[in-house]
Amino acid sequence: MSNIFGKLFSITTFGESHGVAIGVIIDGCPAGLSIDENFIQYELDRRKPGQSKITTQRKEDDTFKILSGVFEGKSTGTPIAIVIENQDQRSKDYSHIAETFRPSHADYTYDAKYGNRDYRGGGRSSARETAARVAAGAIAKLLIKEYGIQIDAYVSKVGEIQAPHYTKLDLSKTEETIVRCPDPQTAEEMIALIDQVRLDRDTIGGVVTCVIKNTPVGLGEPVFDKLHAELGKSMLSINAVKGFEYGSGFEGTALRGSQHNDEFYNDGNKIRTRTNYSGGVQGGISNGEDIYFNVAFKPVATIMQDQQTVNKSGNEAVVSGKGRHDPCVLPRAVPIVEAMAALVIADFLLRNKVAKM
Amino acid sequence: MSNIFGKLFSITTFGESHGVAIGVIIDGCPAGLSIDENFIQYELDRRKPGQSKITTQRKEDDTFKILSGVFEGKSTGTPIAIVIENQDQRSKDYSHIAETFRPSHADYTYDAKYGNRDYRGGGRSSARETAARVAAGAIAKLLIKEYGIQIDAYVSKVGEIQAPHYTKLDLSKTEETIVRCPDPQTAEEMIALIDQVRLDRDTIGGVVTCVIKNTPVGLGEPVFDKLHAELGKSMLSINAVKGFEYGSGFEGTALRGSQHNDEFYNDGNKIRTRTNYSGGVQGGISNGEDIYFNVAFKPVATIMQDQQTVNKSGNEAVVSGKGRHDPCVLPRAVPIVEAMAALVIADFLLRNKVAKM
Amino acid sequence: MSNIFGKLFSITTFGESHGVAIGVIIDGCPAGLSIDENFIQYELDRRKPGQSKITTQRKEDDTFKILSGVFEGKSTGTPIAIVIENQDQRSKDYSHIAETFRPSHADYTYDAKYGNRDYRGGGRSSARETAARVAAGAIAKLLIKEYGIQIDAYVSKVGEIQAPHYTKLDLSKTEETIVRCPDPQTAEEMIALIDQVRLDRDTIGGVVTCVIKNTPVGLGEPVFDKLHAELGKSMLSINAVKGFEYGSGFEGTALRGSQHNDEFYNDGNKIRTRTNYSGGVQGGISNGEDIYFNVAFKPVATIMQDQQTVNKSGNEAVVSGKGRHDPCVLPRAVPIVEAMAALVIADFLLRNKVAKM
Amino acid sequence: MSNIFGKLFSITTFGESHGVAIGVIIDGCPAGLSIDENFIQYELDRRKPGQSKITTQRKEDDTFKILSGVFEGKSTGTPIAIVIENQDQRSKDYSHIAETFRPSHADYTYDAKYGNRDYRGGGRSSARETAARVAAGAIAKLLIKEYGIQIDAYVSKVGEIQAPHYTKLDLSKTEETIVRCPDPQTAEEMIALIDQVRLDRDTIGGVVTCVIKNTPVGLGEPVFDKLHAELGKSMLSINAVKGFEYGSGFEGTALRGSQHNDEFYNDGNKIRTRTNYSGGVQGGISNGEDIYFNVAFKPVATIMQDQQTVNKSGNEAVVSGKGRHDPCVLPRAVPIVEAMAALVIADFLLRNKVAKM
Repeated sequence: MSNIFGKLFSITTFGESHGVAIGVIIDGCPAGLSIDENFIQYELDRRKPGQSKITTQRKEDDTFKILSGVFEGKSTGTPIAIVIENQDQRSKDYSHIAETFRPSHADYTYDAKYGNRDYRGGGRSSARETAARVAAGAIAKLLIKEYGIQIDAYVSKVGEIQAPHYTKLDLSKTEETIVRCPDPQTAEEMIALIDQVRLDRDTIGGVVTCVIKNTPVGLGEPVFDKLHAELGKSMLSINAVKGFEYGSGFEGTALRGSQHNDEFYNDGNKIRTRTNYSGGVQGGISNGEDIYFNVAFKPVATIMQDQQTVNKSGNEAVVSGKGRHDPCVLPRAVPIVEAMAALVIADFLLRNKVAKM
Repeated sequence: MSNIFGKLFSITTFGESHGVAIGVIIDGCPAGLSIDENFIQYELDRRKPGQSKITTQRKEDDTFKILSGVFEGKSTGTPIAIVIENQDQRSKDYSHIAETFRPSHADYTYDAKYGNRDYRGGGRSSARETAARVAAGAIAKLLIKEYGIQIDAYVSKVGEIQAPHYTKLDLSKTEETIVRCPDPQTAEEMIALIDQVRLDRDTIGGVVTCVIKNTPVGLGEPVFDKLHAELGKSMLSINAVKGFEYGSGFEGTALRGSQHNDEFYNDGNKIRTRTNYSGGVQGGISNGEDIYFNVAFKPVATIMQDQQTVNKSGNEAVVSGKGRHDPCVLPRAVPIVEAMAALVIADFLLRNKVAKM
Repeated sequence: MSNIFGKLFSITTFGESHGVAIGVIIDGCPAGLSIDENFIQYELDRRKPGQSKITTQRKEDDTFKILSGVFEGKSTGTPIAIVIENQDQRSKDYSHIAETFRPSHADYTYDAKYGNRDYRGGGRSSARETAARVAAGAIAKLLIKEYGIQIDAYVSKVGEIQAPHYTKLDLSKTEETIVRCPDPQTAEEMIALIDQVRLDRDTIGGVVTCVIKNTPVGLGEPVFDKLHAELGKSMLSINAVKGFEYGSGFEGTALRGSQHNDEFYNDGNKIRTRTNYSGGVQGGISNGEDIYFNVAFKPVATIMQDQQTVNKSGNEAVVSGKGRHDPCVLPRAVPIVEAMAALVIADFLLRNKVAKM
Repeated sequence: MSNIFGKLFSITTFGESHGVAIGVIIDGCPAGLSIDENFIQYELDRRKPGQSKITTQRKEDDTFKILSGVFEGKSTGTPIAIVIENQDQRSKDYSHIAETFRPSHADYTYDAKYGNRDYRGGGRSSARETAARVAAGAIAKLLIKEYGIQIDAYVSKVGEIQAPHYTKLDLSKTEETIVRCPDPQTAEEMIALIDQVRLDRDTIGGVVTCVIKNTPVGLGEPVFDKLHAELGKSMLSINAVKGFEYGSGFEGTALRGSQHNDEFYNDGNKIRTRTNYSGGVQGGISNGEDIYFNVAFKPVATIMQDQQTVNKSGNEAVVSGKGRHDPCVLPRAVPIVEAMAALVIADFLLRNKVAKM
């Protein structure tokens, strides 16, 4: 198991979807940071189920409690422990998966690896785990805000429906649509598609795009902990993620160097690049331009249809989703992507403080 | 800086492109592994410059020396240090970049982050650093071979020229073409394109696909060190990489769950899946199917053309590539991708030994 | 801050003495271990205040709750989170230290380092933090018991009163005296001394000796994580500890090599040593003999007497202990020493599984 | 194996006593530090064998080569690799230990743990490994010197001969005697004792005391990486070390709190303590007073006398030291203790930069 992430601003998470609680310890948050509890709740609310007609109708309040590390509204430098109790513990809903391996879930692999698993609602492999990331990410966001850094993610693609490039969007409008796409026209189409998928008792995948603005030059630690390598790992560690690309990404591979290179110029105040195929990262280190990247999410594995599978004894079985699930995970993935990005940036901000004498 | 990779099978690398030497210490290789030095050299030769007409004509022998950790042909459990001396130290070639920031290179970001940099040939940010990874990866390959695991990477795309899906290829033929694409027809087209790009004094990007066969069920450590998350980080840490996707990847996001889910069946001996959109990984843990993934490489930043840029004083400048460079890095990237994959798999093999009582 | 300990069997702890709760996440406990909750409580009870007339009369129940990682009585391989709520939150008792630095406490150094501190009861620097170690250590003990390993600590010295060498004691009798010294005669003297010290409104230090039996040969990871180096660090990280020695320790430095060397012999079944000045560790690796070591504890800093000091403004002040404190921390330190030893041994047991092919 | 030490200023070492070379990679040295190669050699010379009549007469030059990370005399922020070639590779001297386990050496435990070992001269378990620590420690010393911190170790005890308390010594005189005790009278007695021991074909242990002056307030990371805990681990990881104590240490355990507490006062410029039983560390954090500690070294295990032992087959055998060995390791241990202390302090200096906003 590896439930620790980050080198200086580090988090340790715990919790199963239907256990007593989930939570996180942040070890390494500098002392003296103002902790805005309303903001943490706001972020958790963006991730919680039951927000809108296109997410699962399951109700979980996801209220949190800070157990340590904050005194008189400020971080003290000691570990900040946050606990979120599980409310929706209707284990009956999940009895059908105690013995049967759901296709494209982690049931079989957990069973094979550990011998012993909490099968209720997916246990540790459930995306419920990401609530702890969002809580910790909220504190990371508070930290990087002190440095003027801004992180904005949004749904850029659902199925084949694609939003315009981020530079053509007003990212302040993301929260205005329930699908979290800042382009109203695209959002409407996405919502209609997700609605249709839901009626089909099916699910659909998509892409979240994330943009980080106002990063100082110098974040990222070559050679192995390059800025985009850690961002990539952090995103790929989120449930259902199948791919990560930054800057020009996969498409950029078809370009020639003469097209793809970002020429430098001096804008009077700082050195900048005329284009940004680099995605704000050169040699694994931020160059001060916008950092932007795409995260691919597969369609949710739980569908309301019968599927062939096998059970623990190796016999054939049929399984179908029960309860209330997301037809499309993308809208709720937006705050998770932002949270992981914030954790990575916060960590690199601290690490960069010792780069030179 | 962060030059350590891996938790149990860990490597620490060092070295600048035009310093005295580059190298690696492997800490955590189990004792008793037979170390085949010819194999290490074979792997280094696959990466070295000057192999063929489509790579740089620069000559570096990349002969290595093991300084410790191997006794009478076997690993002893102590750190294995490998050093590769730099032969081609013609620093004059690089004087033009001492003061000028090459577009889409790491010159500017290193300078800003560290204040002080070895500008010769890119110094630490040069892809020369990857030779150390290949040497260490060769030993990781020897380790995982003992478990029957096989890793095969190949060039699947150059520019817009795309090879067929890996399941339609004979991966044993990869070394038969200088571009390292196992499909002869596609290889021919790729070589022609790279030749043309070279004549144009330009460069071109592409994609390396990697396939890992015979992995035991159970590799990967949820939740943060998921198998594909570590693979992703390891690939993204390679110079010039812009994206990573595994299994169905970005394309799979357009599918519906009913299409994308991999149904389980029992083939008599083991539990398998009928399709493999999961790419051999479920919940971050290998399920025994083929692991496969794509790695996007941007076009090489050094082009033989004048480009606008700025120098350290912030003044406008013009820079052009000098010396002998790769028009396309893909053929030489294949052993690097395999090396990083081997390091990740070796580490997870060891980590998995303590998953259960 | 650094609140994570252990490489494979790792713990992350949190909590201030007068915050909401303290606790620990164990990440890396192998799946399939039976978790005996009564045993965890038994260990916590050995550490808790108010056990006897020679400890503080403060009452804290130290009941714990497992939030995750255990299912149907067994560990699942996922993180085990344990929370202990703080009951005795009478912050008024501690108002005198909000502005004043208590001598030989951590008030001044925390204040200087973090700028901001939870001064109630010492906050994070309070020995209350060790309850989380004991809870985690109980699970480590359950793990190593599966390998037949036994850990026994006891109070070997209080002030100048010294118990006989461990080889002359019956360590199963440690719990029979409230001072946790297995020698009844010495125990009586120790208790009398502590009683006198308490009446003098003073405190006294001492030594805990710990013996680990039935360790397999091979635990410990040279060169930096030698078995005794990690044991030493783990002990020195406990509040009030001033020294650590193992085997012949400081006294052994006066011996000659011809006296000190432990000759090997073959007892028919295994290779053993005739003497054990090595303390069961050679070259940082266990050799199968008893591991034994001493841990020095200073007198408790909180005394019921006026002491000169300064306050946050740098002005002279007088401070005196209030409330209910231990005149001697040694009896309650015994389970803490055992817990830390168990955590170290559990970690090395797991690490040793990958030492050779 | 664990050959990595330090979190931010981290070292990875390698090498066997009779292999090709030993060495170290420093990862995390801030860019811009002036690297004085003469100073590194000076430190290595203090450790090298053959310095004086009371050390081994073995000749090893211990000249080093920097392979990377330094450019134009300054660190660049990239890994600094240092290699020291082994010159004295007379493997014949060590043939007697290929099959036989030397008492109180690591032969048996390495053999049991790894199955396979480089038996020549102790291989990795030889104290030759510490030369790499001294080279890295020299660079750490250069770093901390920039902050005004001074580290001085000396031999405070050989056998029963004890030097006065450090506060009564002029530590600038340590290098004036071959035994590295700054008190001339004590030094003379120590030298006479070691000479006698050598004539007796025996060995003797002792204590090194180390004093760190001018440390800023705030170094050390509670709760597990307390300053003295990391110092303790670093010292205990040195060959032959059996104990560590700081401040009042083991003796202080006999004191009462009213005697032992260090009262604070304001000296006009800063907050200080009137006594320093705390040894400059409170709650695991430096308080600005002198940090001082003792390190116990056992008598060297290699003696020029016949000793009973067993061989790999478990049969009785006799072994005797051959070649040229130290009758007392203490004089040469002084720079090693300083080096490890410098590495710990350098790491904490960097870590402390992120303690607060």
